[in-house]
Amino acid sequence: MHSKEELEEVHQRILPYIHKTPVLHSSLVNEISGTDLFFKCENFQRMGAFKMRGATNAILQLPKEQQQKGVVTHSSGNFAQALSLAAKSIGIPAYIVMPSSAPQVKKNAVKTYGGIITECPPSLKDREENAQRIMQETGASFLHPSNDTNVILGQGTAAIELLQEYPDLEVIVTPVGGGGLVAGTALAAHFFGKNCKTIGAEPFEADDAYRSLQSGKIETNKTTNTIGDGLKTQLGDKNFPIIQQYVSEIIRVEENEIIEALRIIWERMKIVVEPSSATALAAVLREKEKFRNKKVGIIISGGNVDLSQLLF
Amino acid sequence: MHSKEELEEVHQRILPYIHKTPVLHSSLVNEISGTDLFFKCENFQRMGAFKMRGATNAILQLPKEQQQKGVVTHSSGNFAQALSLAAKSIGIPAYIVMPSSAPQVKKNAVKTYGGIITECPPSLKDREENAQRIMQETGASFLHPSNDTNVILGQGTAAIELLQEYPDLEVIVTPVGGGGLVAGTALAAHFFGKNCKTIGAEPFEADDAYRSLQSGKIETNKTTNTIGDGLKTQLGDKNFPIIQQYVSEIIRVEENEIIEALRIIWERMKIVVEPSSATALAAVLREKEKFRNKKVGIIISGGNVDLSQLLF
Repeated sequence: MHSKEELEEVHQRILPYIHKTPVLHSSLVNEISGTDLFFKCENFQRMGAFKMRGATNAILQLPKEQQQKGVVTHSSGNFAQALSLAAKSIGIPAYIVMPSSAPQVKKNAVKTYGGIITECPPSLKDREENAQRIMQETGASFLHPSNDTNVILGQGTAAIELLQEYPDLEVIVTPVGGGGLVAGTALAAHFFGKNCKTIGAEPFEADDAYRSLQSGKIETNKTTNTIGDGLKTQLGDKNFPIIQQYVSEIIRVEENEIIEALRIIWERMKIVVEPSSATALAAVLREKEKFRNKKVGIIISGGNVDLSQLLF
Repeated sequence: MHSKEELEEVHQRILPYIHKTPVLHSSLVNEISGTDLFFKCENFQRMGAFKMRGATNAILQLPKEQQQKGVVTHSSGNFAQALSLAAKSIGIPAYIVMPSSAPQVKKNAVKTYGGIITECPPSLKDREENAQRIMQETGASFLHPSNDTNVILGQGTAAIELLQEYPDLEVIVTPVGGGGLVAGTALAAHFFGKNCKTIGAEPFEADDAYRSLQSGKIETNKTTNTIGDGLKTQLGDKNFPIIQQYVSEIIRVEENEIIEALRIIWERMKIVVEPSSATALAAVLREKEKFRNKKVGIIISGGNVDLSQLLF
């Protein structure tokens, strides 16, 4: 269904709008983990997360006339910011439906990137109804943060770049939230790697993907009580089949393992990453024997942390 | 007195022991500053700071027989850690005299890197007497963190790498503490740049270098009440003449300007840096007109922050 050429086209299409992010390598963290780790740093991506890739591809794949009418999503996280900045870069409006309860810092970030915010009561029903209304009023196209083929293919371009730089990676590990990143990465690893596996990392506290792979159908999160606030979202029918076919395994991690991995990344690697990003390293540290002496890619998903409360 | 060939030899000498650190470039920070900034990230250096360079060169320049007896310093900061790790890498002992009042986290770091700690009362006299005693007992050589020609030349290698990658830089800005980094950078800019100036950045609260350049003789700090805890140290007679000859200017910055620059680096660039490191960007932001549209190198001096108190 998908092909290497298709993924290459996606990459070429979004390249003018994204950063080719650096890959970091830390001998200290290699020592701690017993593996050879290559961190693809999407925290250095525009607006601070890989979501910029998928949002850009999804907008660029809309027919020109439809594109001009703008895009709409309901999200309080990185995708809202990514869609706002991608739309601004391409020169079209982005309508963002946000729950009124969303932190002011997230509303400000969306505004900074040029997104047009509609606030609504904090229920999924209200969010969906507001998005629907905006679509009818403006003709804007709805884009989903993770369950959209063009978004998935866009997210996969981080792994394409990682494999272009390090073609011998034996496995790539990514966090699993809505499933867009892990699905896109798995396609990229399949088409651009040499027998490179993809493994997902997920908090026990939001393990819908793990249980979905076990049962063979999309399961819902029973809890979402995790520090990885980008990982509370659900798999969807577009990314689940790709995950079933191309992802080798989902490793679940405890909250204290995420925090320990987060500390290692901040302290040893000196980079600012979101808690969600740390799940991938946490999975490698939890199952050391599985990864021992392997060449392992890790997608650092983003770096948008509200530092104001912590540091200043 | 110094030459390009000498600096090249220093660089070749230490290369097996150090990381060639990446240079980061942020369109967001360029927008904020109105300049084209190139950040040489010594926070990614081994043990987290540029001091690794000078410590390594100073040890390697000791005669072999003397080298084997080890090295000694009194420091509670990054140089203690750098000397410990450099000595360990080269295979000799490092004796570190630390005031008993030094934070446990710093003592632990020195121990991790293999340094042999002697604790003493927290006065300069006690520190010097203890270092003296260790030298007599072990035959170890004393190395000063900043006022040592081999240390200065080692610190300059960060700017050599920066200029090799970006030969057209018009100015390089570094923080000024004891003066080793700014002096070494100025030599590198002189020999490896194309008319590349060096500017130092110093807190008003620890402005010995600024006042020394004004008066033409080494002045002492009147206050050291700055968040830039690596910048409280004094210029010395080895680095001051180099600074007089090769540094164009010292720009002083207020504490709130350092904090604002620190916030920009963490939030926008997603890297963990020490407050001291932020003085260089603070200087660029304070004197925007001076730097407008110029290609400016910035040495990010280090990233050793005690995150335990902040994050975890």
